[in-house]
Amino acid sequence: MMEVPFDRRIVDDVLQRMGIANIGDATIRQSVAVSEEIERLTGTKFVHFEMGSPGLPACAEGVAAQKEALDRGVACVYPNMSGITPLKEQASRFIKAFLNVEVNAEGCIPSVGSMMGTFATFILCAHLDRRKDTILYIAPGFPVQPLQAKVLGYKTEQFDIYHYRDEKLRDKLESYLSKGNVAAVVYSNPNNPTWVCLTEKELQIIGELMTRYDAIAVEDLAYLGMDFRKDLGKPFEPPYQATVARYTDNYILMLSASKIFSYAGERIAIVAISDALFNRHYDYLQEEYGMGTLGKAFVFTILYTLSSGVSHSAQYALAAMYRAACDGKLDFVAQTREYARRAERIKAIFCRNHFHIVYDKDLDQPVSDGFFFTIGRRGFTGDRLLHEFLHYGISAISLRPTGSEQEGIRVCTSKVAPDTYDILDERLRIFDRNNPIT
Amino acid sequence: MMEVPFDRRIVDDVLQRMGIANIGDATIRQSVAVSEEIERLTGTKFVHFEMGSPGLPACAEGVAAQKEALDRGVACVYPNMSGITPLKEQASRFIKAFLNVEVNAEGCIPSVGSMMGTFATFILCAHLDRRKDTILYIAPGFPVQPLQAKVLGYKTEQFDIYHYRDEKLRDKLESYLSKGNVAAVVYSNPNNPTWVCLTEKELQIIGELMTRYDAIAVEDLAYLGMDFRKDLGKPFEPPYQATVARYTDNYILMLSASKIFSYAGERIAIVAISDALFNRHYDYLQEEYGMGTLGKAFVFTILYTLSSGVSHSAQYALAAMYRAACDGKLDFVAQTREYARRAERIKAIFCRNHFHIVYDKDLDQPVSDGFFFTIGRRGFTGDRLLHEFLHYGISAISLRPTGSEQEGIRVCTSKVAPDTYDILDERLRIFDRNNPIT
Repeated sequence: MMEVPFDRRIVDDVLQRMGIANIGDATIRQSVAVSEEIERLTGTKFVHFEMGSPGLPACAEGVAAQKEALDRGVACVYPNMSGITPLKEQASRFIKAFLNVEVNAEGCIPSVGSMMGTFATFILCAHLDRRKDTILYIAPGFPVQPLQAKVLGYKTEQFDIYHYRDEKLRDKLESYLSKGNVAAVVYSNPNNPTWVCLTEKELQIIGELMTRYDAIAVEDLAYLGMDFRKDLGKPFEPPYQATVARYTDNYILMLSASKIFSYAGERIAIVAISDALFNRHYDYLQEEYGMGTLGKAFVFTILYTLSSGVSHSAQYALAAMYRAACDGKLDFVAQTREYARRAERIKAIFCRNHFHIVYDKDLDQPVSDGFFFTIGRRGFTGDRLLHEFLHYGISAISLRPTGSEQEGIRVCTSKVAPDTYDILDERLRIFDRNNPIT
Repeated sequence: MMEVPFDRRIVDDVLQRMGIANIGDATIRQSVAVSEEIERLTGTKFVHFEMGSPGLPACAEGVAAQKEALDRGVACVYPNMSGITPLKEQASRFIKAFLNVEVNAEGCIPSVGSMMGTFATFILCAHLDRRKDTILYIAPGFPVQPLQAKVLGYKTEQFDIYHYRDEKLRDKLESYLSKGNVAAVVYSNPNNPTWVCLTEKELQIIGELMTRYDAIAVEDLAYLGMDFRKDLGKPFEPPYQATVARYTDNYILMLSASKIFSYAGERIAIVAISDALFNRHYDYLQEEYGMGTLGKAFVFTILYTLSSGVSHSAQYALAAMYRAACDGKLDFVAQTREYARRAERIKAIFCRNHFHIVYDKDLDQPVSDGFFFTIGRRGFTGDRLLHEFLHYGISAISLRPTGSEQEGIRVCTSKVAPDTYDILDERLRIFDRNNPIT
């Protein structure tokens, strides 16, 4: 075991050997590799804040249903491209139960994780109107989503929401939309990495502008139900998950099973397309793909060519988890509340040692505790803080690659076990002593 | 039960209601829908030749391993992007055992079926060299592969191999490659839809040209081992599956689990990249994606943004099936030989009723019996034959959308149960009587 801070040379050597000039530029997986290598060399365990993986076991209802489906022989049968009927029906019911929004089963389509959901949706949105060729990201966000557009060769725009909350969001959004080239607006709610939750008013602004400028809101609900300031876990009872779907027909929702049911390993999500969009005809889509109806083109051209469907057995798993949640037998919100409990403790440790929450409020309310939060230190850029933390056995990711213009780092609470709190507190105390705020 | 031929109006009404002007233009899934609707209206079962789905149960070794993995809790853990270690190792071993080719485990990467394998590979190949922007398809082929390029907005070329076998293939290929814009050459072997098997000499020609013009052979081995004229099912013993990998370093192989292990439902395949390509640096790739090494860019940029990995439990299934096959405990070639037995019987019924095999030979040898074959009728275009067959309770797909310039239809043997042979014979006899060859 080495004392913190570690010998400068150890960290510098590892970064140099891995060809990383600036740890703030490393991908999440590179950050993991760096911290694991330093762990090996120092014999000292890191506190891992970098990985956004579930820290809970997979929902048992899903595992049981998936095994049953395998026993019934689904592995040899190509899954229906639109999704198996029980999954579509339960997905529609789940959206009614927890969002209080009606989406036909037809428009609830499985994808290989929300990763494929957004990839496919970006292709779709770029082929609806010849003039609309740009994806607008409300940042900060999951950095892989702009990367998807880059892989596809599509144009992107983004802005940091930090200074544009509430009514200010309208003018900012309109400054892009009024150019007439925006096909889709992408955001996550609750937000990765900041845990900012857009208010119903902000979602109403987005919805109204989507209708006015005929763009599509791509709402990533990976952390559905995890605004723990309210109890969003009672099916068919308010309060409900906030959503743009109340304010426009131009929406496509991403419902990943990875975090809400801790089912990341099996790569499954639902893409929910509003009834109006699903049935809408687009001349440009017809011209480009020979299939003019949005829902049909999405399923039979785009999703078909991407993977020819989604794991047959995992579809049964997700159907069973939705059913159990709607029946009130699986309180997924109560299960994931564990992340909020961890966040509360970890935030307290940081604040006690003179760090601050960067994205601290939704208007006048402190942000919810949850899966992620953001940390800054006066006098430190995010990148420098990250680099310095490597010497203290703490690993995270910088806010910069998420599209944030604020200085800080993202802390993920999911993998931090309670027995790490004392170690974290000790390391931050040493950091605080060595780097006094002036 | 209606007698064949059915009343003209029934078939015409169904096609009109489904908006299908020409059944030869229908997708496979539309063809299924048409025949099922006519079945409903006539009360008469079709002989289904259209769907290329496995007609055998999934390999038990895979199902057992997948369930065990779920029991061990893999559903909550994001799968490693490069694939789990046992799968990579067994895939490398499988390629050695059945192709007698060495590919490092590192270059054996799971994808969500070969569908995603080719989609991702087309993106990769289009970003290696700024001048090389075109995918060349050796037709006929799986029509969805050119559709993938269309979805991506990439340029394509294709030619029908019918008149270009053996040494003639060299000049034909060179006429495209010499333009300098071909990034990749795509073909399947055995071939869907014709069951043509390229000879080692033809593969050598392709390989040599790939090296000379620095293009990549994308070899789809969906039906690996199914040239049943030889026994390709003994691990580590000749004869081996024919492959271009013997003749160039510029290859990427697609090994789907859908047909060889009847595992289509779980959407898993291996993309095997040659060691030389995997480690090769491309300036244009570096420029476009910020990651210049082919293997790394493929995994961490392209596959990552497509689906963030492949079903964790299905990876264990495939690892177990590869292991069993390499250990000589699972003779997947013997199992799939059932398709050849069906093909032999069905071909005999067609020929007895004066139909002919369209793609009938590999040079001087009759094509193997297997999963697919092609049928023509003197005096009929493929589209007209297909349309006429609807009145006889027979459903298939036209060769035209597969890129063939020959007149005929594709027959898939997988779903045809032996108790259908007499019905087929009777219907073809009536057809033959009603449509005498002049």
